[in-house]
Amino acid sequence: MLSFEVLATCGAARRGRLTTPHGAVDTPAFMPVGTLGAVKGIPPATLEELGGRILLANLYHLALRPGIAAIEALGGIHAFTAWPGPILTDSGGYQVFSLASRRRIDDGGVTFRSHLDGAEVRFTPESVVDMQRRLGVDVAMVLDECPPWPITEEEAASSLERTLAWARRAREAREAAPAGSAWQGGLFGILQGSAFRRLRERAAAELAGLDFDGYAIGGVSVGEGEAERRATVEWTAPLLPPGKPRYLMGVGTPEDLLHAVRAGVDLFDCVLPARNARHGVLFTRSGPLKITHARYKDDPAPPDPECGCPTCRRVSRAFLAHLARAGEITAQVLATVHNLAFYLDFMADIREACASGTLAEQSATGPTAGSAQPPREQDVTEPA
Amino acid sequence: MLSFEVLATCGAARRGRLTTPHGAVDTPAFMPVGTLGAVKGIPPATLEELGGRILLANLYHLALRPGIAAIEALGGIHAFTAWPGPILTDSGGYQVFSLASRRRIDDGGVTFRSHLDGAEVRFTPESVVDMQRRLGVDVAMVLDECPPWPITEEEAASSLERTLAWARRAREAREAAPAGSAWQGGLFGILQGSAFRRLRERAAAELAGLDFDGYAIGGVSVGEGEAERRATVEWTAPLLPPGKPRYLMGVGTPEDLLHAVRAGVDLFDCVLPARNARHGVLFTRSGPLKITHARYKDDPAPPDPECGCPTCRRVSRAFLAHLARAGEITAQVLATVHNLAFYLDFMADIREACASGTLAEQSATGPTAGSAQPPREQDVTEPA
Repeated sequence: MLSFEVLATCGAARRGRLTTPHGAVDTPAFMPVGTLGAVKGIPPATLEELGGRILLANLYHLALRPGIAAIEALGGIHAFTAWPGPILTDSGGYQVFSLASRRRIDDGGVTFRSHLDGAEVRFTPESVVDMQRRLGVDVAMVLDECPPWPITEEEAASSLERTLAWARRAREAREAAPAGSAWQGGLFGILQGSAFRRLRERAAAELAGLDFDGYAIGGVSVGEGEAERRATVEWTAPLLPPGKPRYLMGVGTPEDLLHAVRAGVDLFDCVLPARNARHGVLFTRSGPLKITHARYKDDPAPPDPECGCPTCRRVSRAFLAHLARAGEITAQVLATVHNLAFYLDFMADIREACASGTLAEQSATGPTAGSAQPPREQDVTEPA
Repeated sequence: MLSFEVLATCGAARRGRLTTPHGAVDTPAFMPVGTLGAVKGIPPATLEELGGRILLANLYHLALRPGIAAIEALGGIHAFTAWPGPILTDSGGYQVFSLASRRRIDDGGVTFRSHLDGAEVRFTPESVVDMQRRLGVDVAMVLDECPPWPITEEEAASSLERTLAWARRAREAREAAPAGSAWQGGLFGILQGSAFRRLRERAAAELAGLDFDGYAIGGVSVGEGEAERRATVEWTAPLLPPGKPRYLMGVGTPEDLLHAVRAGVDLFDCVLPARNARHGVLFTRSGPLKITHARYKDDPAPPDPECGCPTCRRVSRAFLAHLARAGEITAQVLATVHNLAFYLDFMADIREACASGTLAEQSATGPTAGSAQPPREQDVTEPA
């Protein structure tokens, strides 16, 4: 069964451990995004070598292709993806936002028109729990409605009530698991409420009463500004049950992560490392680096001289720039390896600082200007 | 300096060792193709782990981008590509064939219109030796004219005379290296003559007299049939100096490699492992496998159950098929890792069979039907 332990605190920040049916995860932790079961360009063995512990995949995408029954027949999501460690699946609630033109929402659930073949697929709070149980994930997420930005408080309140009703139904569905179900994973609730403090408070109070295994702050990274995002995290995190893990969905830059850790968040996911790599942007300890910039053409230094990742141990900026200019996928692979290592190493530094009580001195290394907040996962509407 | 030793023979086949300024290569050997300095999708460390020893890169492509001076300033091709082992560069002679619409040829050399920016670039037998010397390659290839297929004997003879004149000039250019040049690499001659036995004999006799460090059979894999290609190898290989390495350019399927080894060839390169991987075709010990075929959708077996490569140790056909159907580059990476491992392992088996005198029993594992001979390297005219 899923369990969580706070090992040390540093202000509101927590150094913890999430224990799952597929092993333990030291928190605060970053979860690399493998929407379809693998991080883009990164074989599972490579992700392991980089220190990845818990993988994030997406229920909507896997349900459409290859389908839940197919994965179940192959032994579940761990056997299918060849990822033996913990796996968290997002519920499809984000696709309510990102695929707004392809879905109809009602109080019962969501009907998507598949982005693959146009077929209608119905997601309900109950079916979403059931599908994740059949996949055998370590952490299942409830179905939620992720509202757009901007939104009026009245609309956000109405949307939140639906999300809360769905959370109650998901909680019941989890209890009502079929006899003989061997699923040992946990179920996280998701807080919505846009950037309205009153609604976030309502969400926290209601969901805490449902005794989920963990709590996610959703509805951020949808186009709001940094101020709204940070305020939402600061209001919300302290309201969440202290003994349960807290997950900030789809966030963000290294600065965002450090801010949220200081506010008491334990888990993160973001497509930024892989997406920036695809666009030739590398995180470094002295800021972002656009590898195809003319200044790197003849630069023999590694992408980040302070980094010990396989890419920085081996190749120069000049060679990476050469491959990126030519559009070689090797550039994307090398850059993704580095960016993932950067995020995973950054979280390890944060854990160390939490444990040693030096989190106040920890600096957010990495890009600042220009690193706009991306959607919280690989959106099918994005060009490949 | 470059040297070659025949350690054992098995019929006409040779088990040998090519010693280069950057280490020794056991032959017969397959050289993975890294046109721009890296195999598509494969970081250099991964290629090392798979057992790759000698890398093939392309002078035409590197001369255009980033340019010879840039690579020289960065410490040469080994420092630039982060490949510490031996490197062979093709001369641009193949681009005379593959970029026929972008070049003018005359007795002095070739003028290309760059496929990148349309700029005119002149390659001469002398400049090609000089550029490879400046790169610091282990094996340089002479500039040749790779004629199209089909061609009349008269045209092929005329083209061959130009190639032979260029070979003499390259040989002189090599001797005339500037004082203080520290280049320790070797220079290989290239035999042309299309599928005309008389012309191949003429090429072999003329080039043997020029005392190159090795001899390549060029002008194959240009559209001719298997019968012509194999006959050319069978006629030509025995005419080459027995103490020097023999390289069959751009060939081919596992069957082609085994055939050529039996005829006495030592070195090979081919884009087939990487290109087939890009198209979802995997080599296996029981034949080719198109991973997106419906039959693999639910198949939990590794791509090749007899293979010990990182891909086959980890992922199933079903997962690879899932990633390939979705167009994920992870599928290309995983498949390329396997196909390269397959070729490198196959050559290791051949070396073992050569040494133990069992080459006659060695079978050509891998695809047969449908595996058309590809061009001998990544052609810029091919869609990415």
